[in-house]
Amino acid sequence: MSARRQPIEYADASAEVRAVYDDIMATRGTDWVNNFWKVLAHDPPTLRRIWANIKQVMGPGALDPLTKELLYVAVSASNGCHYCIASHGAAARRQGMSEAQYSELLAIVGLANETNKLVTALGVETDAAFR
Amino acid sequence: MSARRQPIEYADASAEVRAVYDDIMATRGTDWVNNFWKVLAHDPPTLRRIWANIKQVMGPGALDPLTKELLYVAVSASNGCHYCIASHGAAARRQGMSEAQYSELLAIVGLANETNKLVTALGVETDAAFR
Amino acid sequence: MSARRQPIEYADASAEVRAVYDDIMATRGTDWVNNFWKVLAHDPPTLRRIWANIKQVMGPGALDPLTKELLYVAVSASNGCHYCIASHGAAARRQGMSEAQYSELLAIVGLANETNKLVTALGVETDAAFR
Amino acid sequence: MSARRQPIEYADASAEVRAVYDDIMATRGTDWVNNFWKVLAHDPPTLRRIWANIKQVMGPGALDPLTKELLYVAVSASNGCHYCIASHGAAARRQGMSEAQYSELLAIVGLANETNKLVTALGVETDAAFR
Amino acid sequence: MSARRQPIEYADASAEVRAVYDDIMATRGTDWVNNFWKVLAHDPPTLRRIWANIKQVMGPGALDPLTKELLYVAVSASNGCHYCIASHGAAARRQGMSEAQYSELLAIVGLANETNKLVTALGVETDAAFR
Amino acid sequence: MSARRQPIEYADASAEVRAVYDDIMATRGTDWVNNFWKVLAHDPPTLRRIWANIKQVMGPGALDPLTKELLYVAVSASNGCHYCIASHGAAARRQGMSEAQYSELLAIVGLANETNKLVTALGVETDAAFR
Repeated sequence: MSARRQPIEYADASAEVRAVYDDIMATRGTDWVNNFWKVLAHDPPTLRRIWANIKQVMGPGALDPLTKELLYVAVSASNGCHYCIASHGAAARRQGMSEAQYSELLAIVGLANETNKLVTALGVETDAAFR
Repeated sequence: MSARRQPIEYADASAEVRAVYDDIMATRGTDWVNNFWKVLAHDPPTLRRIWANIKQVMGPGALDPLTKELLYVAVSASNGCHYCIASHGAAARRQGMSEAQYSELLAIVGLANETNKLVTALGVETDAAFR
Repeated sequence: MSARRQPIEYADASAEVRAVYDDIMATRGTDWVNNFWKVLAHDPPTLRRIWANIKQVMGPGALDPLTKELLYVAVSASNGCHYCIASHGAAARRQGMSEAQYSELLAIVGLANETNKLVTALGVETDAAFR
Repeated sequence: MSARRQPIEYADASAEVRAVYDDIMATRGTDWVNNFWKVLAHDPPTLRRIWANIKQVMGPGALDPLTKELLYVAVSASNGCHYCIASHGAAARRQGMSEAQYSELLAIVGLANETNKLVTALGVETDAAFR
Repeated sequence: MSARRQPIEYADASAEVRAVYDDIMATRGTDWVNNFWKVLAHDPPTLRRIWANIKQVMGPGALDPLTKELLYVAVSASNGCHYCIASHGAAARRQGMSEAQYSELLAIVGLANETNKLVTALGVETDAAFR
Repeated sequence: MSARRQPIEYADASAEVRAVYDDIMATRGTDWVNNFWKVLAHDPPTLRRIWANIKQVMGPGALDPLTKELLYVAVSASNGCHYCIASHGAAARRQGMSEAQYSELLAIVGLANETNKLVTALGVETDAAFR
């Protein structure tokens, strides 16, 4: 029993874990699975559940795939999750995110955090026009 | 000296504050200014500075105006700033955000917060492919 | 058993709770106790413990009393705790905080949140000179 | 296009980036620029904007320079930004912050986070005297 | 299109939304549905998805139902979500949480936030025994 | 004066610091002290104060020792404090936490963060039954 869970490779995975890995690779058209899933694999029901959530939320819908990844990166940057910035940043770049767009995204994340704090600290009342 | 700063209306504002209000209305093509600016007006240098930041960051660039507002709303939702969700949500709707898009944005914010926490708690190592 | 704990007034308090209230009033030179303590009073060991912490941390030391209250207000503003901004803001004003100082404090809180997020998202490496 | 932006050294910087670096060094009376600015330099408008913000907010005003740095360190410590604690901690030490003062600052950051959470979780109502 | 989504009552709900409401009530053995679900109902796929998540995560497992609710309340208290404290606090009380247990839970939430911040700010290295 | 405080070993500690180390080891029945305390030892009053808090809050009470450690781990995981997850995770394992229980705890932390954000962003009103 170690404190930090190690990634479970495909070769070492159970059939139920492999089934999720296979679906991840098929959905993404890749031949590898990133570490997040390999670490979640210690808990197969959570692995299946989180993957099902990602597949539904990030799948086709009213927002285009690039915008979805940009939103994921922005929230992850605001939360300071390096792994998530790296993994969803890679996905956003595959969808076409340019470096200039990434710079603007970061600028918005930074500024939103500044104004969010000022608005909350000042207790600004919501304008009637926004209700 | 009251604990919470009240909005300063145009009629009661100094010339330097009115100049910022005028620029906000001219830039947005509106005939009113929302409460955030009216509360910041107690501190004119901050009023000018934050407005200059917003004007630069949210102005024309590599990301289209709707995407910029969606990112602002997403960060504000992740931070739980009601006023900011309301004000930037209104701006996003003016730029064309549909209710279905807003639902998807919220779903991404929620799920990103879940996976951000799991990734960080599990100390997942960044894959070589993401570096 | 109600969901939200109501303040326990001095007249209704047990002897052990009154002893803490008395010490709060004596330490501060006031004739009333604010709601935070009256709500904590539902759990006397926590009431005593938190008051002992505040008394030690906010008492005389290497930082002057005004600076200590400014720091408390800044952290509370960054965390969006309205009650704490109000109560420690009142304490800071009693120690001499001017409105201009409060404006500058808020500007620092806002800007620090912006740069904290940018630094973390960008994964900036610590300069040798800072180590 | 790499996932993490590398610092841009003076020798490799464009004229517009060098102009900001020069102003940072002149303002601070130093002969080097720390990594935060060198990483922001990938996005010159953001580099200029954030530096202009820092220069205004941290420049002469109603709060003395040491207090300003202490507030910056406190917010950065509360947000867990190591780089920011290191860089603004160094600035605070240059302004005279003693180790005893730093210890008290950290104690306030820790305790404020404890009471901020308790107050918010308990939903304590703001006393009339604080409004 | 209003800024804040109103709860959708059973009488006004579509068949697919009613199916989720019915499952919530059947699973819990109650005859009503709380507002969270009624607001999520504006986005039926999200309503179904979040309910499926809650049902799986909070259902029978290695932790007993009371401990699960205590953990949910603790995270919600740490995040300052009043609605979540109220709703999961009610669930915890139904599972037997006493007021004394709730007091201890809050004390742990407060203290963990204090030590979490101190540990992170101080950059404490993980002991070999914990690795 | 270095930027990061190094652990103070028993052999190098003052009498007042050793007294706290001795009490930590006696209370826990161990022959070593973890780094958190050794770093806090640079500030003896804070060392004493935080240890007294931990001893009171985590000592015998209405919640059993395992549940207390689970709550501490959950808050620490939600806050992304690796050291705290490691140290209180070790304590929870000593109290009997199984890997399956840890998996469920993490699942609750993740899901609570998702729903906390959704509830707050949507501004869900508290049901009368929860008040």
